[in-house]
Amino acid sequence: MKRTAFFVSDGTGITAETLGEALLAQFEGLEMEFVRMPYVDTQDKARAAVEEINAAAARDGCAPLIFDTVVDQHLRQILGTSAGSMFDIFATFLAPLEQALGKPSSFTVGGFHHAQHHHYYQRIDAIHYAMANDDGASGSEYARADVILVGVSRSGKTPSCVYLAMQFGVHAANYPITEEDLDRGRLPPVLVAAQERLFGLTIDPERLASIRHARRPDSRYASIRQCEDEVRQVEGLFRRYRIPFLNTTRMSVEEIATRIMMEKAIQGRKR
Amino acid sequence: MKRTAFFVSDGTGITAETLGEALLAQFEGLEMEFVRMPYVDTQDKARAAVEEINAAAARDGCAPLIFDTVVDQHLRQILGTSAGSMFDIFATFLAPLEQALGKPSSFTVGGFHHAQHHHYYQRIDAIHYAMANDDGASGSEYARADVILVGVSRSGKTPSCVYLAMQFGVHAANYPITEEDLDRGRLPPVLVAAQERLFGLTIDPERLASIRHARRPDSRYASIRQCEDEVRQVEGLFRRYRIPFLNTTRMSVEEIATRIMMEKAIQGRKR
Repeated sequence: MKRTAFFVSDGTGITAETLGEALLAQFEGLEMEFVRMPYVDTQDKARAAVEEINAAAARDGCAPLIFDTVVDQHLRQILGTSAGSMFDIFATFLAPLEQALGKPSSFTVGGFHHAQHHHYYQRIDAIHYAMANDDGASGSEYARADVILVGVSRSGKTPSCVYLAMQFGVHAANYPITEEDLDRGRLPPVLVAAQERLFGLTIDPERLASIRHARRPDSRYASIRQCEDEVRQVEGLFRRYRIPFLNTTRMSVEEIATRIMMEKAIQGRKR
Repeated sequence: MKRTAFFVSDGTGITAETLGEALLAQFEGLEMEFVRMPYVDTQDKARAAVEEINAAAARDGCAPLIFDTVVDQHLRQILGTSAGSMFDIFATFLAPLEQALGKPSSFTVGGFHHAQHHHYYQRIDAIHYAMANDDGASGSEYARADVILVGVSRSGKTPSCVYLAMQFGVHAANYPITEEDLDRGRLPPVLVAAQERLFGLTIDPERLASIRHARRPDSRYASIRQCEDEVRQVEGLFRRYRIPFLNTTRMSVEEIATRIMMEKAIQGRKR
């Protein structure tokens, strides 16, 4: 039986979605459809949301779940008239939080986003840094790097750099270790000069072959033999140069980024 | 008086941090220090966390706040012995959620991350797409674009594309409208061919000048005169070609991405 979960917010809905997904992941074998409803910030929009929630209830034959971070109490009351089971995130936590802090909350619509605003420049700068220093660019900006990810092609370097920049304002460059580097058995000089900032990513050869196959089907590049050789050689290189490294095979981008920050003791510039 | 907030998790801690920050943003004038504690997944690590929390309590002279998404009950009990005020996110919501769903939760450590795993390829593919189609690349991949962002240099195109890819698996390309395009008063042919997928970003000239100034101080590129001209001309171009557009001046990347998805009715490939 399918069930629908709604993430309703007067802002982007990303907080409601993040929490709702994390909670629902604790249940096995659910068949869920997820619907994010951002910018529900007027009574008309709240009533339209109720209609959509009730339509899902009729279609599914069971009560939808509603995770909401709507600040305005009147809008929450309108949502509460729907056929859904409501998980009222702000209402649940703001009262005990007010008590702990000894002050009232502002209940400002969109307050969340204003609070993030002062990180804006640092995150944007970090994203542009990641773009400019992706895939072994010149190396002239390595002095500004918090970390330089190294590994073979498609071991997860680029998404990890982008996530580190986006989420934490970290300056992350990446450098692909090529077959030529592996044959020589030496790090290129541009990396030796920045050795203390290097972090290696590796990956199981079977997974690497499958990722590469999606990019260039039936190529030598994607063959299991080639992937096995490159992974064995690059891990040897990491050990020889004492570069800390991580096997990303079963990890999400969020996990890889978090592990890198822990291992390299990077604080980030998010705030 | 400074106060410390801890985001404690047996996983990355990103859910706890996202929710904790959103809640604390509802309070004005807090002076907070944020500490994320990921991978607290053994009794030793939980006890070490308690020590760090108690040290912050002594240093701040007031109880730290603890937002946790630790699944294991024994570890949560250990955290509960600290001097902090605990906001137990999973414990608060999982019981009512079990009731609504009529089934027990798995309480599997790391279940969250496994649940995300099947989105992995699509997000990674979208990130590589954003990198390859940043800043007006060839246009040969525009057939795969869900959206093509257009605007003057530093109007927010690149971070928005990267966020759309990372968070939602959306294929977002971007194309910078140059002075030559503006002088000609025409969209380049590669964009005309993909017109229904275009979305414009604009920005207040003062803000644009400040962003450009950080990149190239005291340049013509960063002058207020130049920024005013470009913004006026590009908005004219958007109107002439009936390209929907958004002023990003006071918006976070999350807000820009959410608005674009709403306006272009993009669903995303996250699940």
